[in-house]
Amino acid sequence: MGFEVTYVKVDKYGIVDLNELKSAIKKGTILISIMHANNEVGTIEPIKEIAKLARRSGIYFHTDAVQSFGKIPFNVEELGVDIASFSAHKLYGPKGIGAIFLRKGIDILPYQHGGHQERGLRSGTEDVAGIVGFGEAVKIAKGELQNQTAHLKKLEDRFYDGLTRELKDIYLNGHPDLRLSGVLNISFKSVEGESLVISLDLKGIYASTGSACASGSTEPSYVLLSMGVSPELAQSSVRFSFGYENTLEDAEYCLQEIPPIVKRIREISPK
Amino acid sequence: MGFEVTYVKVDKYGIVDLNELKSAIKKGTILISIMHANNEVGTIEPIKEIAKLARRSGIYFHTDAVQSFGKIPFNVEELGVDIASFSAHKLYGPKGIGAIFLRKGIDILPYQHGGHQERGLRSGTEDVAGIVGFGEAVKIAKGELQNQTAHLKKLEDRFYDGLTRELKDIYLNGHPDLRLSGVLNISFKSVEGESLVISLDLKGIYASTGSACASGSTEPSYVLLSMGVSPELAQSSVRFSFGYENTLEDAEYCLQEIPPIVKRIREISPK
Repeated sequence: MGFEVTYVKVDKYGIVDLNELKSAIKKGTILISIMHANNEVGTIEPIKEIAKLARRSGIYFHTDAVQSFGKIPFNVEELGVDIASFSAHKLYGPKGIGAIFLRKGIDILPYQHGGHQERGLRSGTEDVAGIVGFGEAVKIAKGELQNQTAHLKKLEDRFYDGLTRELKDIYLNGHPDLRLSGVLNISFKSVEGESLVISLDLKGIYASTGSACASGSTEPSYVLLSMGVSPELAQSSVRFSFGYENTLEDAEYCLQEIPPIVKRIREISPK
Repeated sequence: MGFEVTYVKVDKYGIVDLNELKSAIKKGTILISIMHANNEVGTIEPIKEIAKLARRSGIYFHTDAVQSFGKIPFNVEELGVDIASFSAHKLYGPKGIGAIFLRKGIDILPYQHGGHQERGLRSGTEDVAGIVGFGEAVKIAKGELQNQTAHLKKLEDRFYDGLTRELKDIYLNGHPDLRLSGVLNISFKSVEGESLVISLDLKGIYASTGSACASGSTEPSYVLLSMGVSPELAQSSVRFSFGYENTLEDAEYCLQEIPPIVKRIREISPK
């Protein structure tokens, strides 16, 4: 539509470089959009600082909070964001419903035209059940935020510690601390990620080699490549996610099943 | 987007004039879009003939079947349509979910970009519950189509016959026969439609002065105006809809409540 887009680089943890972001701002820049937490590696971006930078520069700041919302605190005033997007199914709400926060005074073009529903911004009969379900999911998530984070951290620590004891040449992608609890993107050297995922599937362990939005693609994850992970290692990466229903026993089961499979794949691997 | 749109006229029943449609076709016309049944008056358009005309002229034909789908038979082969849109809540399915029929070989631009879901045409996590609910609603509607039509016709006839016996100067808008059963758009001379709707609301009778998409508007219905109804009479029109849960007793209750209210409004009306 005639707009110019500048993509800013990230460091090896996937964190946006604030200095580069700053120098990417041009006369006429109208929007900065940086996700709150990355969906493949879980890295949490410094959006409070980015929001400050944007405000000082008179630029609107949008954050895609789909991955983080309901998992870490999100307060539009505290973070200073102007626009934020959310999705219900990421916090155990219904699929097919999302929300956008739009600071008062920001004019956006309607997303759908027609019957003037939702103040004309998104015409069409509203998914009432979805909206109510989303609201309920947010309420529940808000009440359980702290407990869940602690729970997921415990599972994740047990899982990753166990893996590193059993397996050599594995690498955790994403920031070691500034990361969503429960999301672990791990590179297994000399293991084709897709093969590992398929083998795990047979054991009832459901992991993925990337985001659902990239499923079906055979290309290595552009997220990992941007972080400086080599194409080979990027192809050897699997994302594990723990959820609120998972138990320490689940983590133990993974630790029992995954190492032998990784070792077997490495044995038959040509490399 | 640079396209030129020609709006074709309708006759007094709201039926599209086929000759005018034919002469509206220009070199370069790529699409004819005519709704299957009108949502305000229920008139059923001759879409089979329109589809033939479109095909002969090498033009794609789209029909908005939202109002008719699940109420009258709809077979894309028999009707010859190329593209058709449907909405679940119109046949008692969940709100917020719809469908489009797209004849094989027709290329359309993606509606949403992103994660390549739905063959790239509408990216985004699918509303699975909505999709399943829609499918179930269609299955049920298909099985009950004939019975329901007969049931709605009976209620509608009882209702309209009763009204005409009790009230003078009322007019049924839309085609007398080529009309969806159960939808009655009636003009009550010298009665402000909105006043009637509010009075009926107090009696537990929920009618409307137009489509949901035009709610909040104080303008007379453009549908009725296009049919040649005078602005005064268009402002005096109310749409009644019977549904599958309505009974003959409901129709009788309406006949008991509506005429006295109409008479009272007419008495206090300045005209």
